[in-house]
Amino acid sequence: MNSTIAQPESNFPLPAGFLWGTAEAKIKYANRKDVAIAIAPDGQCSAAAVFTQNTFAAAPVMVSREILQHGQGRIAGVVVNSGCANAATGDEGTSSARVMATTAKESARTESPFFVCSTGTIGMRLPIERIQPAIGIAASQASATAEAFTNFADAILTTDTRRKIASAHFIHKGTKITLLGCAKGAGMMQPNMATMLAYVFTDAAASPDLLQKCFSNANEYSLNCMTIDGDTSTNDSAMVFASGKSGVDIGTDKDALAEFEKALLSVLQSLAKQLARDGEGATKLVEIEVRGAPDFLTARAAAFKVGNSPLVKTAIYGRDANWGRIAMALGNAGLHFDQARVSIWLGPLLLLSEGKPLSFDEEKALAVLGEEFVRIEADLASGDGKATIWTCDFTERYIEINGSYRT
Amino acid sequence: MNSTIAQPESNFPLPAGFLWGTAEAKIKYANRKDVAIAIAPDGQCSAAAVFTQNTFAAAPVMVSREILQHGQGRIAGVVVNSGCANAATGDEGTSSARVMATTAKESARTESPFFVCSTGTIGMRLPIERIQPAIGIAASQASATAEAFTNFADAILTTDTRRKIASAHFIHKGTKITLLGCAKGAGMMQPNMATMLAYVFTDAAASPDLLQKCFSNANEYSLNCMTIDGDTSTNDSAMVFASGKSGVDIGTDKDALAEFEKALLSVLQSLAKQLARDGEGATKLVEIEVRGAPDFLTARAAAFKVGNSPLVKTAIYGRDANWGRIAMALGNAGLHFDQARVSIWLGPLLLLSEGKPLSFDEEKALAVLGEEFVRIEADLASGDGKATIWTCDFTERYIEINGSYRT
Repeated sequence: MNSTIAQPESNFPLPAGFLWGTAEAKIKYANRKDVAIAIAPDGQCSAAAVFTQNTFAAAPVMVSREILQHGQGRIAGVVVNSGCANAATGDEGTSSARVMATTAKESARTESPFFVCSTGTIGMRLPIERIQPAIGIAASQASATAEAFTNFADAILTTDTRRKIASAHFIHKGTKITLLGCAKGAGMMQPNMATMLAYVFTDAAASPDLLQKCFSNANEYSLNCMTIDGDTSTNDSAMVFASGKSGVDIGTDKDALAEFEKALLSVLQSLAKQLARDGEGATKLVEIEVRGAPDFLTARAAAFKVGNSPLVKTAIYGRDANWGRIAMALGNAGLHFDQARVSIWLGPLLLLSEGKPLSFDEEKALAVLGEEFVRIEADLASGDGKATIWTCDFTERYIEINGSYRT
Repeated sequence: MNSTIAQPESNFPLPAGFLWGTAEAKIKYANRKDVAIAIAPDGQCSAAAVFTQNTFAAAPVMVSREILQHGQGRIAGVVVNSGCANAATGDEGTSSARVMATTAKESARTESPFFVCSTGTIGMRLPIERIQPAIGIAASQASATAEAFTNFADAILTTDTRRKIASAHFIHKGTKITLLGCAKGAGMMQPNMATMLAYVFTDAAASPDLLQKCFSNANEYSLNCMTIDGDTSTNDSAMVFASGKSGVDIGTDKDALAEFEKALLSVLQSLAKQLARDGEGATKLVEIEVRGAPDFLTARAAAFKVGNSPLVKTAIYGRDANWGRIAMALGNAGLHFDQARVSIWLGPLLLLSEGKPLSFDEEKALAVLGEEFVRIEADLASGDGKATIWTCDFTERYIEINGSYRT
């Protein structure tokens, strides 16, 4: 993947077999679409999903997990609301999430069930009486246009400052297969506990099992490699829908599968970078690569220690090449390594070489840290494991956003 | 322990058998004492210590670990410098740490070795040529007075805004046994990676093994229950010295042992609270109790998830009774519990009752959060494990302190 700031795409191809619709339910704010639906009209769509590991999983997460298990991967789409997370809302919350899913299915007149997602304030009652009619309106107006998809991508946002859209395509034996994704979240954790949501739509054909396998794997190297503040929200959900309309079955052709996996990873990594760059109060996208670890998971854990350290994040914000904070964070990851063999780079500048501090050009370091994209590398010299994660810097604006009295 | 803000003591008793001295080595700043020594002159002192678990352990930590192992717990005291952490400094750093320890032993003319500690910027060369003569001056001027101890407590500070001193005593069969401690650190992690240091001096008599056992245990419920920003520094060291001058041996009397353990815990918990309250940019001391967990360690892990969550800490700063963030953090601790049975309190206000959100008086919540001391309680209803930790709120000032360009 190239190491630049991924921008949301504005000129994207549409995968065949999906309709998108939005409507206004006035859940938290007036004058914005806050209910969205994506529909695979003929009910033949395969779906796969990954959900938050948080023990306080929100009602829509619990209901969607059930639907995934019982629907055997044949899902007709997803219905989403922003402004209220429907988390920690007891039995009434579970019941409301079920009503959302049922209303979507009835409004879309499909055989297959719908996933349901919510994002916004935790512990707030879901105004289902306003959401239910909005779902009907969104479904009746759903269409297969770029504008409809953009509206969908906008309706799921909460405190995000930018929409996040990414696409990829590949040609297999003369047929074009398209993947189109969107996401929301100014962090894994946001003001008032809104959450990360991501959706990918494709016209590839795939069995639910294969789709789940591809998606879970790609997710490990993309959305699961992104952090704003180290917390996993109650509502995180990422979903993929495959309509099959391209006629290319990735289960029967190894080349098509390899191409699909590559395209899926590129869409999810682009969304992960867009999410990190739009972290609350962030001014920079920070990419951290740790190599020389025992394996991928330990490398990622060490990279997360660096990416979640408030002192590393404030140093980057303050353009301070304070590599000692990076060393401290690496040493705090519970890994065994020999500090006398560790090397650390800031952009192209080698700051610690096999345990020895090097003198470096402070002006050059200042210039590296002045960019909107900052890359940190560390080599632990203790194995072949390697991981890259994405995060952002940590600014006064984060405190302002999250410290202001809840309204 | 009472749940108030522990203040540094100004009127404290001195344990017999110790001298304290300080001197100026101009390591980072002019016009302040930055080298300190504590001496048990007759070399009969028992000592015990706990050190950082960070893989990037600083040179003085590695040297002190060796001294503890080889000295068999008979230690003549400790020499400390502030302003430079002597961490990630390679072989030269290790050599400088050894020189500090040897110089202290020679200057104090004792048979037993000295511990060595450093605190300040990581990756900076230790100016041993200025520190060595300062150790000689500090040792020659060392004395057993309250003023000398206060100077010692001040000389070890870096960006701390307040000195931290705590004492306790008990009467055993007519004899008074005194414990006196001090600590530094505006967090586990500080600007430029200075660190947490804590020292306790007592005139109780104890074998090094028993002292280590008591100290390690008390440390688990005090300094290891404190967090500013979730990071473990490279230099953390806490040490206890027992001169035996009271004549009361805690190894031969169960009542004396129980009294000593209680007194030691109270000193260390007071220091832990003083450290948390003085966290960088902090305006409040926050106490978090988690109960109903499987055991102490899982309860503490869950409490730390709450205490390290930037969103919980900014909400407390912003006086926002946003208990959803507390629920999210608890759910993020990797524990198994039933969210339908969890209860959460803010001060005396019950906000979530067995999984059900309660409506509460926002004015009262605002008043609770307006205090300098804020207490949060959570009951996970999944066992008898209980833990209390101390932290602080998270403010713009933290970003300012840590985001300013390194000078």
